Amino acid sequence: MSASPQATKAPGAGATWLDQVVFDAAGLVPVIAQQMPQGRVLMLAWADRAALEETQRSGLATYYSRSRARQWRKGEESGHTQRVREIRLDCDGDAVLYLVEQAGGVSCHTGRESCFFRRLRDGAWELADPVLVDPRQLYGREAT
Amino acid sequence: MSASPQATKAPGAGATWLDQVVFDAAGLVPVIAQQMPQGRVLMLAWADRAALEETQRSGLATYYSRSRARQWRKGEESGHTQRVREIRLDCDGDAVLYLVEQAGGVSCHTGRESCFFRRLRDGAWELADPVLVDPRQLYGREAT
Repeated sequence: MSASPQATKAPGAGATWLDQVVFDAAGLVPVIAQQMPQGRVLMLAWADRAALEETQRSGLATYYSRSRARQWRKGEESGHTQRVREIRLDCDGDAVLYLVEQAGGVSCHTGRESCFFRRLRDGAWELADPVLVDPRQLYGREAT
Repeated sequence: MSASPQATKAPGAGATWLDQVVFDAAGLVPVIAQQMPQGRVLMLAWADRAALEETQRSGLATYYSRSRARQWRKGEESGHTQRVREIRLDCDGDAVLYLVEQAGGVSCHTGRESCFFRRLRDGAWELADPVLVDPRQLYGREAT
């Protein structure tokens, strides 16, 4: 954190911003995407080192899909990309926050604004948010 | 998600809200704490089944500390508890969101509002947020 940008980027300097991220045993770190300026938490996904680097380089939120075991740019299928305005790191370095502008206002594959659309009420999860876009429009098939 | 609250709570039905949470191999799920009503993302921590249950029961954000290997009520040392107004679950059930009122307005052990106080700028992490409370006041010793 005290390194200057010059030192950080110098070849062989050995310390880049990525070195301060604490990845888990699988080489991943959890990433929260929060919509700007509204502040809605959209999703939680995972990133490896390369995905973080690609996010910084491209300005588009990039993750690592554990189920597909590959890098994944949000919106690569649906077109609902996330423009990253800021990347933040937490105090112990093992969680990342992307502050994003969500294209289309829909983050979830179910066609909802946020993936956190289930709310606990009286001991059961209830659907709290409306579907804004037919998921078949997003992917050409029904979302599960 | 199609179960009615009645069915979900029926004894012997075998399905409670906790059964719909997908825990990882260590029995944990990542939990985001977001401050209400301002919307600031405060922290990311982990919960096991018992911590989620205790959160619902007590209305106070409870987590599982991986480093201390025990349940942990936020603020148990510092007094900066989190009153949970809503618990949300994401689309695939493997991430939880607590919407909280943060006592004292300080979530981070460094005395800052949020644990996400480092911002990437020109290839380096910079300290973006002020220290609001001396961490020695929070814990009687200096925060690391």
